[in-house]
Amino acid sequence: MFTPMDAVLLSIGNELTLGETVDTNSAWLAQRLAEIGIGVLRHVTVADEIDPIRRQIEMAAADAEVVLITGGLGPTADDLTRNALAAAMGVELVLRPEWVERIRVFFTGRGRDMPEANAVQAVFPVGSDPIENTCGTAPGIRALIRRSIVFALPGVPREMREMFERSVRPELASAAGGAVLVATVLNCFGAGESDIGEKIADLMARGRNPTVGTTAKQGIIGVRIHSRGRSADEARELLERTEVEIRRRLRWMIYGRDSETLAEVVGRLLAAGGKTVATAESCTGGLIAQKLTDVSGSSQYFLEGVVTYSNAAKTRMLGVPANLLAEHGAVSEPVARAMAEGCRKASAADYAISATGIAGPKGGSTDKPVGLVYLGLADAAGCEVTRHLIGRFLDRTDIRERAASIALNRLRLRLLGEPGEPSR
Amino acid sequence: MFTPMDAVLLSIGNELTLGETVDTNSAWLAQRLAEIGIGVLRHVTVADEIDPIRRQIEMAAADAEVVLITGGLGPTADDLTRNALAAAMGVELVLRPEWVERIRVFFTGRGRDMPEANAVQAVFPVGSDPIENTCGTAPGIRALIRRSIVFALPGVPREMREMFERSVRPELASAAGGAVLVATVLNCFGAGESDIGEKIADLMARGRNPTVGTTAKQGIIGVRIHSRGRSADEARELLERTEVEIRRRLRWMIYGRDSETLAEVVGRLLAAGGKTVATAESCTGGLIAQKLTDVSGSSQYFLEGVVTYSNAAKTRMLGVPANLLAEHGAVSEPVARAMAEGCRKASAADYAISATGIAGPKGGSTDKPVGLVYLGLADAAGCEVTRHLIGRFLDRTDIRERAASIALNRLRLRLLGEPGEPSR
Repeated sequence: MFTPMDAVLLSIGNELTLGETVDTNSAWLAQRLAEIGIGVLRHVTVADEIDPIRRQIEMAAADAEVVLITGGLGPTADDLTRNALAAAMGVELVLRPEWVERIRVFFTGRGRDMPEANAVQAVFPVGSDPIENTCGTAPGIRALIRRSIVFALPGVPREMREMFERSVRPELASAAGGAVLVATVLNCFGAGESDIGEKIADLMARGRNPTVGTTAKQGIIGVRIHSRGRSADEARELLERTEVEIRRRLRWMIYGRDSETLAEVVGRLLAAGGKTVATAESCTGGLIAQKLTDVSGSSQYFLEGVVTYSNAAKTRMLGVPANLLAEHGAVSEPVARAMAEGCRKASAADYAISATGIAGPKGGSTDKPVGLVYLGLADAAGCEVTRHLIGRFLDRTDIRERAASIALNRLRLRLLGEPGEPSR
Repeated sequence: MFTPMDAVLLSIGNELTLGETVDTNSAWLAQRLAEIGIGVLRHVTVADEIDPIRRQIEMAAADAEVVLITGGLGPTADDLTRNALAAAMGVELVLRPEWVERIRVFFTGRGRDMPEANAVQAVFPVGSDPIENTCGTAPGIRALIRRSIVFALPGVPREMREMFERSVRPELASAAGGAVLVATVLNCFGAGESDIGEKIADLMARGRNPTVGTTAKQGIIGVRIHSRGRSADEARELLERTEVEIRRRLRWMIYGRDSETLAEVVGRLLAAGGKTVATAESCTGGLIAQKLTDVSGSSQYFLEGVVTYSNAAKTRMLGVPANLLAEHGAVSEPVARAMAEGCRKASAADYAISATGIAGPKGGSTDKPVGLVYLGLADAAGCEVTRHLIGRFLDRTDIRERAASIALNRLRLRLLGEPGEPSR
């Protein structure tokens, strides 16, 4: 049996509360704690003011077994973590001369004299333990407040990470008793967050292990699975069982996991089948080609792309008949078809993708509103064109992004032999 | 006279407490609040659990006049901000049928039926006001808890930002009694952060108003100016005086301000001169075309682009002689030149940009390492090719990004008649 442990993360600094610097330390620490089975109740960012820092340390120690503080250990007047921690512990600060010497040695090693201001970094709350900093001047601090263990680490990410790995992780991993949390994200495309949520609502119920949650970004729905176990094997087995069940229900909607992109998955499928692709883009302006070629090794399957913005380019490079453009307009089903077919013929690729639409914000009309996009997909069997209303409330960048994802997802489903979503 | 107001920011979501997503909303909101003179006491990130969210809302309302909550307004079972807010207010939740209709209209506008799960987004605490979401399904919520005003906004950054600007900022700016902090960023390209820092070191000294700082991202150096005044006019005048001085020193290095991109600036210069451009890309895979066409109205000056990944495509689409490819290889000065010249001839554009290089991580050699890129720029006067070693320690995406920026910046300097940086 193991006792689940929880942590609260505190980050200190005006540059954080003012929003001039984004706090990445807390996210990094939360991931490391998850790896050793410690949950995170909350992250709190506080300004360089002694009383608010003290108060947050006290609340954190009341709520959690582990408190990790980053920042506020520097040598200047606005570095107050030492003072606030001593106040929360109800003790005085004391100068430890042997640590002044260590800091002096750090400077000497770099051929510099220690500025007197740095001596304050050798001041610690009575009863706390200094933690060595191998890549900076600020030692960390380890202290106990009632039943909680508190670590104060430097705010500089490199120093913080090194100190955590060397001096904090081993103690916490042992205290957490080998409990482990493993996580994965299944990336879905082609269905909305609520559709997906409905299909897995029972798995998302509170209090289950693994926990399942969803996030949405630019049409990509991430289904996150977090599993807790007494060992890595147990946690992984629980996760896999839930993953299998989610895959059974969401099937083709899931295109990849963790950081995998649609373009990577399409590339892998093309390479596996020895197939090639070419692109003919208007409204997406090269975005589909850019995504496909952002994958290392894409020269194996990506032959060429054209960005035919002008009608003249559509006719000259893809053989789109001028009368077709005149009759239906560039944003139309027949033109999307002619672009994909012309591209496939010119490039001799197995698959050709075309995109023509109105990315906005200008250029829309009642018949052809902003967000209207036609996507063509041509292969040896012919050409299929789908029509999409991507949403006039999205901005230009998002409409293009969404159109490119839909086009790549259609090719993915074609390569898998899945019917997938209907056009919409 | 104005009364200083303080805010607490709450962000909700397991993906945040677990560290899978870095919370960028809080930093963005803190900057916006600073602009209207509202200080931020703390940021708190909480998991998707009703009681901890309720407790943090209560503490925030006890400490601050303004509480901004982001996230937890989605349609699934783990979206609990509505419930926690009602609990903190001590009221029930009520379904507002007119808001179900609004959400339904949002789906209808995209040619879809509203999933029943989304109806929960029309549930609000009794006595609160819904806030319209013009780019997503989740309405926001405005509520009062004792002397504090609480806004709950969607977690999706785009939706959150739009809702803040439209519905939250005006009320808060008026309550805060006048703007005090104004900020701008001057975006530079073509020089390193330390070179730029040296030229403006005196302006970056601590304790000055305005404050000046630099940030670096993918070769773009941002020079941030923050100016504080008793009135917006005073702050703006101080800022302008510093901006003029910085522009005098950095001249052509500054290409734009705030969110302005190189592609937007190039587009404006092309449009102003009635000029057109076409692209011929290999290693950048469509990225240059994508950047140029990401600008609304780009069809006015962007004619066409080709992504010639295969040698066959280079020969067929751009007329690059096969013997040139055989003799020098695709990544070479003569091929970059033939690509730009062939592209300009085929498209009849005023300017043609070409890019050929090794984006990696594979494909590099001692002679032609990863990060080697040749960029061609052809116009009526001829074609100039520059050679760049972009840095083998960057990854594929960054090498492509940097190459595209260098190419766009060269066109910008050409359009301005500036010599700019030497090739490197």
